[in-house]
Amino acid sequence: MSLAQRLLNGDRRALARLLTYVENEHPDGEAALSDLFGHTGRAHIIGVTGAPGAGKSTLVTALAKALRAMGKTIAILAVDPTSPFTGGAILGDRIRMVDLTNDPGVFIRSMATRGSLGGLSRASRDAVRLFDAAGYAIVLIETVGAGQSEVEIARIAQTVLVVEAPGMGDDIQAIKAGILEIADVLVVNKADRPGVDTTVRALKLMLELGHPALRANIDSHHGRMVAVTPQPEAPNGNSAFWLPPIVQTTATTGGGIEPLIAAIERHHAYLRESGTLATLESRQINTELHERLRELLLRRLLDALPPHAIEDAVARIQRRETTPHEQIAQLVDAEQQPRL
Amino acid sequence: MSLAQRLLNGDRRALARLLTYVENEHPDGEAALSDLFGHTGRAHIIGVTGAPGAGKSTLVTALAKALRAMGKTIAILAVDPTSPFTGGAILGDRIRMVDLTNDPGVFIRSMATRGSLGGLSRASRDAVRLFDAAGYAIVLIETVGAGQSEVEIARIAQTVLVVEAPGMGDDIQAIKAGILEIADVLVVNKADRPGVDTTVRALKLMLELGHPALRANIDSHHGRMVAVTPQPEAPNGNSAFWLPPIVQTTATTGGGIEPLIAAIERHHAYLRESGTLATLESRQINTELHERLRELLLRRLLDALPPHAIEDAVARIQRRETTPHEQIAQLVDAEQQPRL
Repeated sequence: MSLAQRLLNGDRRALARLLTYVENEHPDGEAALSDLFGHTGRAHIIGVTGAPGAGKSTLVTALAKALRAMGKTIAILAVDPTSPFTGGAILGDRIRMVDLTNDPGVFIRSMATRGSLGGLSRASRDAVRLFDAAGYAIVLIETVGAGQSEVEIARIAQTVLVVEAPGMGDDIQAIKAGILEIADVLVVNKADRPGVDTTVRALKLMLELGHPALRANIDSHHGRMVAVTPQPEAPNGNSAFWLPPIVQTTATTGGGIEPLIAAIERHHAYLRESGTLATLESRQINTELHERLRELLLRRLLDALPPHAIEDAVARIQRRETTPHEQIAQLVDAEQQPRL
Repeated sequence: MSLAQRLLNGDRRALARLLTYVENEHPDGEAALSDLFGHTGRAHIIGVTGAPGAGKSTLVTALAKALRAMGKTIAILAVDPTSPFTGGAILGDRIRMVDLTNDPGVFIRSMATRGSLGGLSRASRDAVRLFDAAGYAIVLIETVGAGQSEVEIARIAQTVLVVEAPGMGDDIQAIKAGILEIADVLVVNKADRPGVDTTVRALKLMLELGHPALRANIDSHHGRMVAVTPQPEAPNGNSAFWLPPIVQTTATTGGGIEPLIAAIERHHAYLRESGTLATLESRQINTELHERLRELLLRRLLDALPPHAIEDAVARIQRRETTPHEQIAQLVDAEQQPRL
């Protein structure tokens, strides 16, 4: 029986093997993904990101336990784009998850980068598809929050949690630029610590100043600032836009996890009922096609070029005998010549 | 006279126009860059990155003033990848630079993204080349420090300053993963604030634990941890590796700026005398060729495809009638068919 078939039958070892294949770009991984693709599109994919030290791993563990208690199956993908420095930290964090690992309804996998961020992004997307096809109801993707990975997570996840903690720099400048644009739910973890109110206030102000949904609102009022009204909690979820709620948690004790799950479920309902889920998936597939076409075309060109063609071009450019622009044109033409 | 020629003659308006061209990907920008490329390769390109709130803009201003007093010409490129949220902050920061703007030996330019990060990265690289060709001895690139831009800066700069400030989260987890891998000089700014010793200690520990140069050292001792010895300050700069020094500054008063400039100059000397500068440039050109080939090949394919080919593929994938893998192969073949 193929690995793909075994995965569909619930074989955890087949899933583990296929995860290794996609991580290592083994050709059998691609074939299995194609076989399994028709079984994807059912999981709720939740990304968890935020500053290092905010307690993301503990939060993910607490979330997973609470969701398990509700009977949901969960896959956790811990993405670490910077193994040399945080390898230890990630391992330490994983130890806290140990009581989840004997649960057959939970699958935990870490993925570190050996190559480019692009490679990690692709491997993460493929891993999520494997979990999805294997029938896990919820896939939690956790990143160590090192820059690029936060942007990447938004390309894969459906609901993005951005985790902050009190005292991590609460002035507006210190809240990471751009992060609010990807947040669907803002979590202030370590809410038992002093300064939690300051952090919540700073986040609220940040939302009022700059959230795209509110900006759209402001724009439609001819540039005048309108009062920020709390989002109407329509039972059918048909709100015109989603305003990220701010949820306080104390992941170490499980405090606030229930309201957080409620917020996540509200967001999922909003995505489904507003049609945003389909738009989001279509945008993600579009991005994937562009990325993969770019890589495939480059690989084909490099394979077709004579050996050292790139190195030679680099050396000539470095000696200022030619320009990057000229060399690029020549490299592309060199490949197309033999075909004519 | 061409804009490129006028730039070479020291015409600031020609430089400003060409900067706008490369920012907007105007075709005349590419032509001018090709004309000017032979005049590049002389500037010292310094990147300044670090957490928001660390005082990067004030530091850049203080650095620029001190370097000007030493008779060097300076171009400053402020890169802001996330205009909606930080636009105000950047503008406010720029006001501090106002007494530099009447100095003909200084050129200041802000660049914000309207499109992709890739676009900003390319525009920044091109802008640096324009400054370089225009004869500025030093190009300072400042980013707002939002994730990806920190990685990008390492692709363009020769000497990277990573700026921290006391009390911004001094435990190892909170120091941004990966940032030490790109740092050539570590700056602890706001050194008049309490907690500066803690920050310096945390950075030192981080260096001892994980700097690539020291790791290499550890590896060569069969995995045993060796004592961290201060870098030998060889007068010829022929050290086997560069250990990032930690420099304390108080940019608002100019405190520590002289030692910082000395550290920057030591790094530049190390780069030149160890041959690392040529290796670095070669690696940067190599990356540029790969990036630009990827984009050019994709653009050619998209131009050759029938209208809606991508949208149709996305829709079929979303309906699970086909897989991304299959569609990518078909899209590439669709373009190549007519040529045979």
